[in-house]
Amino acid sequence: MNGLRLALVLAAIVAGPAHAQSAADDPGNWTMPGRDYASTRFSPLDQLNAGNVGKLALAWTFSTGVLRGHEAAPIVADNTLFIVTPFPNVVYALDLTQPGAPIKWKFSPYPSSSSQGEACCDVVNRGAVYAYGRVYFNTLDDQTIALDAKTGKEVWRVRLGDIANGETMTMAPLVVNGEVYVGNSGGEYGVRGWLTALAADSGKTLWRAYSTGPDSDVLIGTAFKPFYAQDRGTDLGKRSWPGEAWKIGGGTVWGFVSYDPALGLIYYGTANPGPWNPAQRPGDNKWTSGIFARDANTGQARWFYQTSPHDLHDYDGINENILVDVAVDGQTHHALVHADRNGYVYVMDRATGQVLSATPYVPITTSLGVDVESGRITWNPEKEPEPGKTVRDICPASPGGKDWQPAAYSPRTHLVYIPHQDLCQDAMTSQVSYIAGTPYVGAELKMKAGPGGKRGLFTAWDPAAAKAAWKIGEDFPVWSGALATAGDLVFYGTMEGWFKAVDAKTGKELWKFKTGSGIVGQPVSYRGPDGKQYIAVLSGVGGWAGAVVSGDLDTRDQSAGGGFAIAMSDLKQKPAKGGMLYVFALP
Amino acid sequence: MNGLRLALVLAAIVAGPAHAQSAADDPGNWTMPGRDYASTRFSPLDQLNAGNVGKLALAWTFSTGVLRGHEAAPIVADNTLFIVTPFPNVVYALDLTQPGAPIKWKFSPYPSSSSQGEACCDVVNRGAVYAYGRVYFNTLDDQTIALDAKTGKEVWRVRLGDIANGETMTMAPLVVNGEVYVGNSGGEYGVRGWLTALAADSGKTLWRAYSTGPDSDVLIGTAFKPFYAQDRGTDLGKRSWPGEAWKIGGGTVWGFVSYDPALGLIYYGTANPGPWNPAQRPGDNKWTSGIFARDANTGQARWFYQTSPHDLHDYDGINENILVDVAVDGQTHHALVHADRNGYVYVMDRATGQVLSATPYVPITTSLGVDVESGRITWNPEKEPEPGKTVRDICPASPGGKDWQPAAYSPRTHLVYIPHQDLCQDAMTSQVSYIAGTPYVGAELKMKAGPGGKRGLFTAWDPAAAKAAWKIGEDFPVWSGALATAGDLVFYGTMEGWFKAVDAKTGKELWKFKTGSGIVGQPVSYRGPDGKQYIAVLSGVGGWAGAVVSGDLDTRDQSAGGGFAIAMSDLKQKPAKGGMLYVFALP
Repeated sequence: MNGLRLALVLAAIVAGPAHAQSAADDPGNWTMPGRDYASTRFSPLDQLNAGNVGKLALAWTFSTGVLRGHEAAPIVADNTLFIVTPFPNVVYALDLTQPGAPIKWKFSPYPSSSSQGEACCDVVNRGAVYAYGRVYFNTLDDQTIALDAKTGKEVWRVRLGDIANGETMTMAPLVVNGEVYVGNSGGEYGVRGWLTALAADSGKTLWRAYSTGPDSDVLIGTAFKPFYAQDRGTDLGKRSWPGEAWKIGGGTVWGFVSYDPALGLIYYGTANPGPWNPAQRPGDNKWTSGIFARDANTGQARWFYQTSPHDLHDYDGINENILVDVAVDGQTHHALVHADRNGYVYVMDRATGQVLSATPYVPITTSLGVDVESGRITWNPEKEPEPGKTVRDICPASPGGKDWQPAAYSPRTHLVYIPHQDLCQDAMTSQVSYIAGTPYVGAELKMKAGPGGKRGLFTAWDPAAAKAAWKIGEDFPVWSGALATAGDLVFYGTMEGWFKAVDAKTGKELWKFKTGSGIVGQPVSYRGPDGKQYIAVLSGVGGWAGAVVSGDLDTRDQSAGGGFAIAMSDLKQKPAKGGMLYVFALP
Repeated sequence: MNGLRLALVLAAIVAGPAHAQSAADDPGNWTMPGRDYASTRFSPLDQLNAGNVGKLALAWTFSTGVLRGHEAAPIVADNTLFIVTPFPNVVYALDLTQPGAPIKWKFSPYPSSSSQGEACCDVVNRGAVYAYGRVYFNTLDDQTIALDAKTGKEVWRVRLGDIANGETMTMAPLVVNGEVYVGNSGGEYGVRGWLTALAADSGKTLWRAYSTGPDSDVLIGTAFKPFYAQDRGTDLGKRSWPGEAWKIGGGTVWGFVSYDPALGLIYYGTANPGPWNPAQRPGDNKWTSGIFARDANTGQARWFYQTSPHDLHDYDGINENILVDVAVDGQTHHALVHADRNGYVYVMDRATGQVLSATPYVPITTSLGVDVESGRITWNPEKEPEPGKTVRDICPASPGGKDWQPAAYSPRTHLVYIPHQDLCQDAMTSQVSYIAGTPYVGAELKMKAGPGGKRGLFTAWDPAAAKAAWKIGEDFPVWSGALATAGDLVFYGTMEGWFKAVDAKTGKELWKFKTGSGIVGQPVSYRGPDGKQYIAVLSGVGGWAGAVVSGDLDTRDQSAGGGFAIAMSDLKQKPAKGGMLYVFALP
């Protein structure tokens, strides 16, 4: 452990509640996509509230010069706003102390053009992280890069994967105690998933934990104490697969990573097993489609919980884990709240991995319930794929009740604000052969609106009561992140381009603004050098849900990457492609 | 003459002053880039004024999905806003009656991809025109297209040129009395320039007037009465050229066309002769680098005035002609005001072609004056190019004191608001061979800021007094259009992205907003269905001046197309590429 890491570990030990553990504790900053280690996306700024948000106006804008899906969170520290664009992953530093926030510096990493062909569902990037005076980010062609935040000069870059195998990187790193956590993408290409820890000062690999394979590869050792019996045993990451299928078995790590400084644990989800056709991989397919808790320092697994054992419908487990205290049956737990693709909101004890509740937040036909005693989900046999047979009315569809789009939590309302979708699908699986660097899926799908008729929902979820407090219906999937603020406001964007502020308590719409393209980015809030509270969000439609526009897809496409297109064909006539930062404040 | 044309000719005959002769007389509309036939770019709307413009706020935005230079004017009619993008020339109709102005229809003409390689200086388009319930526009690959404005359905399309010869189309048509006037681009490719009139209802060619060649091709006949002796004679468009050089002699028509209904004349400028190297084309090179007045109906030339005979420095004559009444020496003239590339503002009698005054509006080293008696400019022999020799401090540089960026005129202040630049250059010419479809220039240049140190100027010009009323300096060339309003405001944009409102009388800055990219578009004003006055402008840096960003040019480039890059290398660190419509109003 080097000096920097040691100092930061010590700092973490003396710190307070999890959501205040940001590397930059200034409430006016926003240094990582989740804002804090607990991934609450809650801004302590309260200048904006229900009484004045109706006057919110655009302060300035900035074009990124890129037209693919903009899923990143803007990052703010040191009076500078940092953006990383979709491929070609240009990083801009904008000077907030100057009128109009001119470019302070710009960094072009020039990722391999070929990487664009290896990204299943648009060439997105989910954001950079500011820490230790540096900006850390990933490129689509599997590089992690550290820049000097003041000058934009490259400090180091390392290559962690190989696009020739279909491996890409789209996630935002998390930086904790001198370690940079990075995971890979490519579950639709037979990629073997991993999370890698790099030394923040040098980029050197400290450890790598695979999501499949023998325990030694998965960093499962004596500290591993899963709560449920089905997760105990030796080399389950090999033995729950046929033959050597685990080597091309998915379980990539492309979502957000959370961290609990008190427990010293990081939390992240693993993606779907590959291929999608489940007939080719009998068994539980560990450790895909579940949640890992690991020692933040050593990477050793502490517990694992599989939300979708032997996943049947591309129900990745990558959705973010929000670390908050939740009172369940009169007892306050240091909990983890996770709205899964499979349609359940999980409230878990984050120390043990025990499921405290698992409650549907969208209509579900694919399973009959989750038994919190055994930890087992009961798949509905009627919706089980069978090669060559079209299975109808699979709910939720493959993007799940919620996909990557991160929820927010307000410690004032104790509600989780979930941007998500309500989609069902008809699907047919088929045998598929593995060819490195090409899609390895074996499924065709046709998505459609769920039973409520609204493809998008924005749900305020009460994790203690395990029920929704309120819901807002949207025409298209709500593919943006959510932002909660201390002024009891919640912000989110729509794929048509509306950016909205609603009352955190009631869901009442208080303000909206029509941005230039559709919004699939993560809104954030910061305090400017002038003391004002600002709200920033990228507008630029795309991502899996918006690739019909950003990737000019054929609306008849039924592939895994394109299967969204059928349900989104009308989006082609709504927003055009774009890539623009919008920054709002009171006039 | 068909019925439609006849009816419109009759309507024109009974109409009033030139600048009110719009096909759509509603002061809330903006149906052509110049707003009226006189090209005043003056909006009669007065809701916005010096007292309230400080509160101007962004109402909504729209991403065009294209990242090249956005030089077009938004067009408003029938509660719909129409945009044509740079290549690939997509047309959007946005419904102003709905919140956020959603897409009403979208039309993709799919121009030939090869046309991009034939455009000297970015793949711009300067706008569409609304007339007779149709939208008329040009594509980069030489097509003129008419769409039904309500449905976006194609009514007709015709191809007028051949990209294989380097011929493109970037200008906005003008529609008058059932005729659509269209010109070509490509003066840097040995293209022979022309203006063509099409029947608005069918697209059929009614006549074509070339800018070089025998009188029969130029439509010079008995009605031709040039004011000055040097423009009189037979077949000067052949005889003022060596050999058959007129066949590849330039004189393209890529600027704006104006129309005087009382005189029945249209006015437009012709571009530089080709190649740039003047040693290859001894003679006056008629009818390049000058202004034509033609019968609007038959195309027959009425007069011509050559602003830059035997042009030495790429001083195109294409800059717009604003048709206004000007009092000179106590006598009011039906005048034409034209700020030329060569550095002089010309005030001319538009009935006769007589030069009433020709006054420098930027520092000039290339000429010693214009004699209004003889109509002759005196070139400075010290700045005359000589093959193989570097000529230093050529002022203005090749883009001239002003390039395409159109000025506005206010009938309230009687001032012309000129967005322009102040650049000088060092240049060297050389022998060049003609190869169809490739650059035919024979010059290398290095531009730099003019003696005042400001690359951009925004000048309020008093055409009666023949002097500037006030000037604003800008760091980069002011490459946007200007807008004047009845509230005595003037709007323009900067290449860094600022959109500014200044006091029409004093030039005092009253308001500014930082758009996402740099502005090279034409601001317009309209009245929304809610009765409010709106201001709209496209932001998306590019054009010749901005191609260093939009075309990713090497900043060392000294070619004709890239020669701007050296002077603009710092622009690379200012705005990123973009393509966004900004629409402002009072909150």
